[in-house]
Amino acid sequence: MGGGVEFFERLNGGKRVAEFLDALKWDEHGRVAVVMQEARSKEVLGVAFANREALALTFKTGLMHYYSRSRGKLWMKGEESGHFQRMVDLRVDCDGDAILARVRQVKGNCHLGYRSCFAYRFTKSRTGATLSVKFVGRRVFDPAKTYGKQR
Amino acid sequence: MGGGVEFFERLNGGKRVAEFLDALKWDEHGRVAVVMQEARSKEVLGVAFANREALALTFKTGLMHYYSRSRGKLWMKGEESGHFQRMVDLRVDCDGDAILARVRQVKGNCHLGYRSCFAYRFTKSRTGATLSVKFVGRRVFDPAKTYGKQR
Repeated sequence: MGGGVEFFERLNGGKRVAEFLDALKWDEHGRVAVVMQEARSKEVLGVAFANREALALTFKTGLMHYYSRSRGKLWMKGEESGHFQRMVDLRVDCDGDAILARVRQVKGNCHLGYRSCFAYRFTKSRTGATLSVKFVGRRVFDPAKTYGKQR
Repeated sequence: MGGGVEFFERLNGGKRVAEFLDALKWDEHGRVAVVMQEARSKEVLGVAFANREALALTFKTGLMHYYSRSRGKLWMKGEESGHFQRMVDLRVDCDGDAILARVRQVKGNCHLGYRSCFAYRFTKSRTGATLSVKFVGRRVFDPAKTYGKQR
């Protein structure tokens, strides 16, 4: 937030996907952060990164694509699990370096079997020295069956 | 998502803030991505980055602190605008490299005067070659007055 020319100014009325991609502020690795939000419930499902190719494929197919930093490659969400994310819309922040992807999630986003990757909630004690943790995940599939059966 | 030991395993029952911070998976710059979500409406307000010091101060004060990549320094959200974010809780993803901060936002998060930084919505045409854009921001303050008066 803040500093430099805003995303919408850079876009300058462009309607083509290539213009949209040019206006984004890619990091030094050519990526932007993508927040996945279930469009209906507004639950935040996770955070991933996308490169230019991943976003172009997302627009082409209507299915969310990302870039995996750990595996060093492009992937389509659900390609292995079948738990696709249909794109409803993408929202871009003022800077153009983060995207909010509103999606319809098949079953769950988390590879551990939860609807959302954010399965643990932390609150602070009065002094802030210690934390209370609560498990807030909702199990929606069995990862052993989901990933096991396709390998 | 995926790969390596999960955050909750690394935390291993720790309740102290230092243990929580040790269990996170910091990037090569010592930061994690933080998604800001208004706790009541579930609106996603923006994405920022936090380093260890920023999160320690967040737990200590109950007010969200971040690390500004453009300014290269720690900052408390609202320190200039008065638009603080009170921390409700923090949620950590399975990997431990992203945080969902559920907050109560004073006025608005965006320095352009909007409630959320995600003020523009993009949907795709059938072929995916062109995009429709719609402004979905809600103006909640006048940035000229808010930032001007404190300079």
